[in-house]
Amino acid sequence: MNAPFKAPTTKAVDFLDGLFDAGLLMRTGVDGVYGRAGIFEEVIDRFEALVTRAAVGDGATRIHFPPGMPRRMLEKSGYLKSFPQLAGCVHSFMGNERDHAQLLAMLEKGEDWTELQQATEVVLTPAACYPLYPTVAAQGPLKPAGALFDLKSYCFRHEPSQDPARMQLFRMREFVRLGTAEQVTAFRQSWLDRGERLIAALGLPCVVDLANDPFFGRAGKMLANNQRDQGLKFELLIPVASDDKPTACLSFNYHQDHFGSLWGLQFEDGEIAHSACVGFGLERTALALFRHHGTDVEAWPDEVRSLLWA
Amino acid sequence: MNAPFKAPTTKAVDFLDGLFDAGLLMRTGVDGVYGRAGIFEEVIDRFEALVTRAAVGDGATRIHFPPGMPRRMLEKSGYLKSFPQLAGCVHSFMGNERDHAQLLAMLEKGEDWTELQQATEVVLTPAACYPLYPTVAAQGPLKPAGALFDLKSYCFRHEPSQDPARMQLFRMREFVRLGTAEQVTAFRQSWLDRGERLIAALGLPCVVDLANDPFFGRAGKMLANNQRDQGLKFELLIPVASDDKPTACLSFNYHQDHFGSLWGLQFEDGEIAHSACVGFGLERTALALFRHHGTDVEAWPDEVRSLLWA
Repeated sequence: MNAPFKAPTTKAVDFLDGLFDAGLLMRTGVDGVYGRAGIFEEVIDRFEALVTRAAVGDGATRIHFPPGMPRRMLEKSGYLKSFPQLAGCVHSFMGNERDHAQLLAMLEKGEDWTELQQATEVVLTPAACYPLYPTVAAQGPLKPAGALFDLKSYCFRHEPSQDPARMQLFRMREFVRLGTAEQVTAFRQSWLDRGERLIAALGLPCVVDLANDPFFGRAGKMLANNQRDQGLKFELLIPVASDDKPTACLSFNYHQDHFGSLWGLQFEDGEIAHSACVGFGLERTALALFRHHGTDVEAWPDEVRSLLWA
Repeated sequence: MNAPFKAPTTKAVDFLDGLFDAGLLMRTGVDGVYGRAGIFEEVIDRFEALVTRAAVGDGATRIHFPPGMPRRMLEKSGYLKSFPQLAGCVHSFMGNERDHAQLLAMLEKGEDWTELQQATEVVLTPAACYPLYPTVAAQGPLKPAGALFDLKSYCFRHEPSQDPARMQLFRMREFVRLGTAEQVTAFRQSWLDRGERLIAALGLPCVVDLANDPFFGRAGKMLANNQRDQGLKFELLIPVASDDKPTACLSFNYHQDHFGSLWGLQFEDGEIAHSACVGFGLERTALALFRHHGTDVEAWPDEVRSLLWA
C-alpha cells in the first residue's frame, strides 16, 4: 500500500498511471488536466502552510489574482515573444440566435464550431506574478525599502504531456520582491537557502542548479544562453516522474530591471526597480512527496508528517 | 473608516469604485477581472471554513478540479446549447517560427493576431460540478446510499460587468449529492435550511426565492419558465451592489436525472441517479459581508467576527 512508486526512470506515463490507480489523480480525457483527490489537496494545503511559516518573518503583502488576466497585459509583457506556444487566450461565442443555430448544427455534425468564437479580453495567467507588476506600478512609487508580495494563482501553459509533473493547469505559490538590485538578489539568495532546507526537511532528494526558460525558436536559444550566462534563473530539482530528468519544483529568478522598466516600477527618486521571485510548484511538490514517501500519507515518515501536520 | 457603503441602489459601479478605493479589489483594466487584497482572501478563507464546519457531519468526499476542463466534456454537457454566450474556450498559438514572426509583426502594428491561434482541447469550467459527473461515472455504479462530493473551483463566465458581484472569474464552493430523487431533494432541503441560518448568523439580510438560469435566446425563455414551474432552482439573495436587485450568493439546484442520464450515472440495479447541488459564491458572499459590515473587518460586529474567526 505504501511502497514508493517503482522508479519510472524512462516512462513518466507509468508514474501517471500509478497516480490514477491510487486514486490521487483522476483522468479527464485530456493530458495535463486532472481531478485531484482530497488527500492530494490536503498535502498541498499543508505544504503551503509550511511555506507560509517559513516566510512569516518577511511580512509579505498577500494579493490574489484569478487564473485569467487582461490580454493587453500579456501582449505588453513580452510573453508572446518568448513563449507564444504556451499562452492561452480565452475565446467566446458572441453571436445572435441564428449564429447559435449554426453552432449547434456544427456541434451535432461533429464539425469544428470553435471558429464561431472571438477572442475575449481575457488570457490565462502563465505565472502568478504577471498581473502583479502593473498593479503595483499603479499604486505609485516604491518606498526605499521596496516591497514584498505573497501570491498564489492557477497558471496555464499549453504543453499537453503525460508527465504528471507537467500539467496544463497547475498552482504556483510565489513571493515577489521589488527593490534595488542588492535588495532583490539578497531576497533570492535567502530563498535559495531556505528552499533547499525546507525540501530537505521533507525527506526529498534535491539539487539546486542553474536553469533557463523554454524560450521559443532559434532566437530563443540565444535568450536561454544569455539567461544562463548571467545566472538569472536557478531551479530546485527533485526526481518526480523520472530519475534521469529531475523536475523543477521551486524556481528562483532575478529579472534585473526588466519588469521595472516595462511597467514603470520605480522609487520616489525615479530609479527603476529590480525584481526577483521564488515560485513553488504546488502540484509538483505534492507529486514529489507521493513519489518518495508513497501513496498512503498515514505511513509517511514521522518527521515528514509532524512537519506538515504541525 | 468602517462605514458600510452608501447604499448604491442604482449604480453598481459606485460600489465597485468604493472597493477599489478601499483597496479590497484592484483594477486590471478588464471589467470582471480584479486583484483581491489579502484581507478579502482571508474573509473568503474564513467563510469557507464556516461552510466546512456546517457540512462536517455529512462526510462529503473532497475532489478538486482545475479551472479548465476538456472541451469534449463541455460539448457533451449541453452547456453550449443553453449558455453559449457564457462559455470560454482556450485557444493557443501552434505555429512555426515563420508564423511566430507574423504574430509579432501583427502585435507590433496593433493588428488582431488572435486568429493565428487554434482551439485547444481545454475550455474554462463554468460551474464547479461540471467535471464531476463523468469522473464519478467512470468509477462504476453508485451504492444504495448514493454519494456526496465537496468541490471548489474557479469558474469563468463571459459576462463583463461593472457589478463587482458579477465577475468573469470567480470561485464556487459546491456540494453535490448523487442518489435517488428522495435522497437528493432531502439534501437540497437541508441546505436550504442550513444556508439561510448560516447567512443570517453572519448578520446579512437575505431571502430565498425561486429562480431560473440565464438560458440563451427565445427558446431559452421556455427553458427558464419550465425550470421555474418545476421548482428546480432556488437562490439565496443578499443585497450586494444594489438594494433593488439583490444578488444570488447561494444556489440550490435539483437536476432531476439530467446529469445521471447524460453521463450514465446509475445504481448497481441500473436505476439512473438523480443529482442536486448547493453552490456558494465565494466572492459574492465576501462582497456581501464588506457591503453590510464595512471595509474594516476589525470593526465588524463581535458575533460575526467570532463566528468567522472561530
